[in-house]
Amino acid sequence: KKTRLQDTLRIGSIPADGIGKEVVPAAQLVVEAVGVPVKWISLDAGFEYFQRHGVALPQSTVDTLINSCDGALFGAVSSPSHRVEGYSSPIVALRKKLDLFANIRPVISSPHVPRSLPGINCVIVRENTECLYVKEEQLTTTASGHKVATATRRISQEASARIAKVAFDIAVQRAREFKRPGKVTIVHKANVLPITDGLFRETVLAVSKESAYKDIIVEEQLVDSCVYRTFIDPQSFDVLVAPNMYGDIISDGAAAVVGGLGLVPSANSGNNFVVAEPVHGSAPDIAGLNIANPIATIRAAGLMLQQLGHDKAARAIEAGIQESLRRGQTTKDLGGSESTHSAAEKIASHAVA
Amino acid sequence: KKTRLQDTLRIGSIPADGIGKEVVPAAQLVVEAVGVPVKWISLDAGFEYFQRHGVALPQSTVDTLINSCDGALFGAVSSPSHRVEGYSSPIVALRKKLDLFANIRPVISSPHVPRSLPGINCVIVRENTECLYVKEEQLTTTASGHKVATATRRISQEASARIAKVAFDIAVQRAREFKRPGKVTIVHKANVLPITDGLFRETVLAVSKESAYKDIIVEEQLVDSCVYRTFIDPQSFDVLVAPNMYGDIISDGAAAVVGGLGLVPSANSGNNFVVAEPVHGSAPDIAGLNIANPIATIRAAGLMLQQLGHDKAARAIEAGIQESLRRGQTTKDLGGSESTHSAAEKIASHAVA
Ligand SMILES: CC(C)[C@H](C(=O)O)[C@@H](O)C(=O)O
Ligand SMILES: CC(C)[C@H](C(=O)O)[C@@H](O)C(=O)O
Repeated sequence: KKTRLQDTLRIGSIPADGIGKEVVPAAQLVVEAVGVPVKWISLDAGFEYFQRHGVALPQSTVDTLINSCDGALFGAVSSPSHRVEGYSSPIVALRKKLDLFANIRPVISSPHVPRSLPGINCVIVRENTECLYVKEEQLTTTASGHKVATATRRISQEASARIAKVAFDIAVQRAREFKRPGKVTIVHKANVLPITDGLFRETVLAVSKESAYKDIIVEEQLVDSCVYRTFIDPQSFDVLVAPNMYGDIISDGAAAVVGGLGLVPSANSGNNFVVAEPVHGSAPDIAGLNIANPIATIRAAGLMLQQLGHDKAARAIEAGIQESLRRGQTTKDLGGSESTHSAAEKIASHAVA
Repeated sequence: KKTRLQDTLRIGSIPADGIGKEVVPAAQLVVEAVGVPVKWISLDAGFEYFQRHGVALPQSTVDTLINSCDGALFGAVSSPSHRVEGYSSPIVALRKKLDLFANIRPVISSPHVPRSLPGINCVIVRENTECLYVKEEQLTTTASGHKVATATRRISQEASARIAKVAFDIAVQRAREFKRPGKVTIVHKANVLPITDGLFRETVLAVSKESAYKDIIVEEQLVDSCVYRTFIDPQSFDVLVAPNMYGDIISDGAAAVVGGLGLVPSANSGNNFVVAEPVHGSAPDIAGLNIANPIATIRAAGLMLQQLGHDKAARAIEAGIQESLRRGQTTKDLGGSESTHSAAEKIASHAVA
């Protein structure tokens, strides 16, 4: 994040699986169109790579990111539901290895998207390193031959405090930008999990007391009713802060009310690095058909550029997206007839400053 | 469940907190109107009771339910988000103490409810005894003075198999009733939790192979995309089977798309007992105002009667609800002007066979 604007950015490109291989190139095309000097560094990861090479996230990918990249753009990873010996999600591993502790997911309405509810503008700030994602699981067999599996859910004060700060900083910045009071909604289930979610809640509340955040309204919402509220009254959210898995789940709900997963980006951010990715998955059913909606990944690239100091380019990209949406130059999922590639080209053409 | 139809049912009435104290009497009124002989046995539980007596679920309530009741109707329980020393949710405790392992939540569209999407008719079958609800939590402080909390998530083959059987039995019965193929959707997150959710998934798939279930279609859906699909395509669900917390979360999403939590009931069922309750909470903001929607609880009473063999009465109650909805004789949340009590009276008047 310490690059100068004129420096060439070195960005890892990790398409990974399925439509990742189509939407990442589409986003690259748009980034180039807005004139940001980028050197793309192609990196391997994913389930398909695992099937060929026995490893989902090669050490060389991690090393290159750490040693030679300013940021990265990730596509999507296939999720086999059956347990595959030796396989585990490379994006989850990447978040942990690079300590990308904040998963930032802006969710906004699109006036020209049929299924989008109006007036939604919120940011989900998802803790990205712990909760059930520590993946400490065990299988035992009882005397009577029955299997019992356990998983550890871990919530630490440290991780909760740093994600809270990210959320409140975003709320402060948005309050300034939108010239209205900021609000942070703490998502938890402390009525059932008073120790773990209790710690998350208390820690976020403690951060909210810091003087820098004194104008930010704080509220809390149980995760189940948060999903409910996402459908009934999503306009009432500003910034949401959530433990890892609740954040995962509420993001998908939020994507649904703004018109679909094809639109929602995320930035996995640490103190020194950002890996941007769409919220959607690898969509094996439409992979290879050049029909996937590239917008989520293009927006992800915009988030990345913004975090790397290229605010103007990021704004140009979003303006390009808005213009394409307005003109209906969209892929099939949004009712249009563009291909992945041509949709990106249209956005690129509207995005040039 | 072994009562004869002419026997007087002995039903525990546990209004508990907030609007529970209004919607339970409303449901009792309707049960009486359909002519089921019931002796109601008032029982204590809840946060308000805890505040007065230091215990949320008195042993006498549990004993009376076990020794002298055929079933029970539960209202709602207040959920303080802050940790209250000595308090823990009485409904979660009740589910465990009476081994009410299946939480059955039918979700149907209402043609006359403004916010209801059309064509939804599914049943969420939520495992009710384990997952994070085992409430095994620990707090430790690290050498550097930071707090770390952990919770255990437990998934057993035994509990997964018995909940799977409930789901498949319901799917078989619905396939017969609706004269179309049945389908069970397994909700999990085995891509991140291959051991715990992997065990749930494998166990449900093993049950699906039983010959009685050979005509039932089986599919799976990651919990995050399940929430997404609930908003985008809820009509495509038939029976969903989910571990405890996923079931909790997806129920609220499903309630949102059929017009609100005021409409969705649940039955906590074990081998010998049923505690029915609305899916909604105690709604402290409207408690005491006689404006809460009683339909979820009236439907819960119907589910209970059905499980106790009073199918005809259960159908009469649902017909009464449909008629009230059709006439707009609803509470404020659905756009009507009835009170809790008068809404129940209207339903009762339409429900008489
Ligand atoms: C692919 C999967 C591991 C991932 C997650 O659960 O975090 C995805 O659902 C997401 O939201 O980024
Ligand atoms: C009140 C709470 C403990 C409960 C749960 O989480 O099970 C509620 O949300 C429900 O769905 O019945």
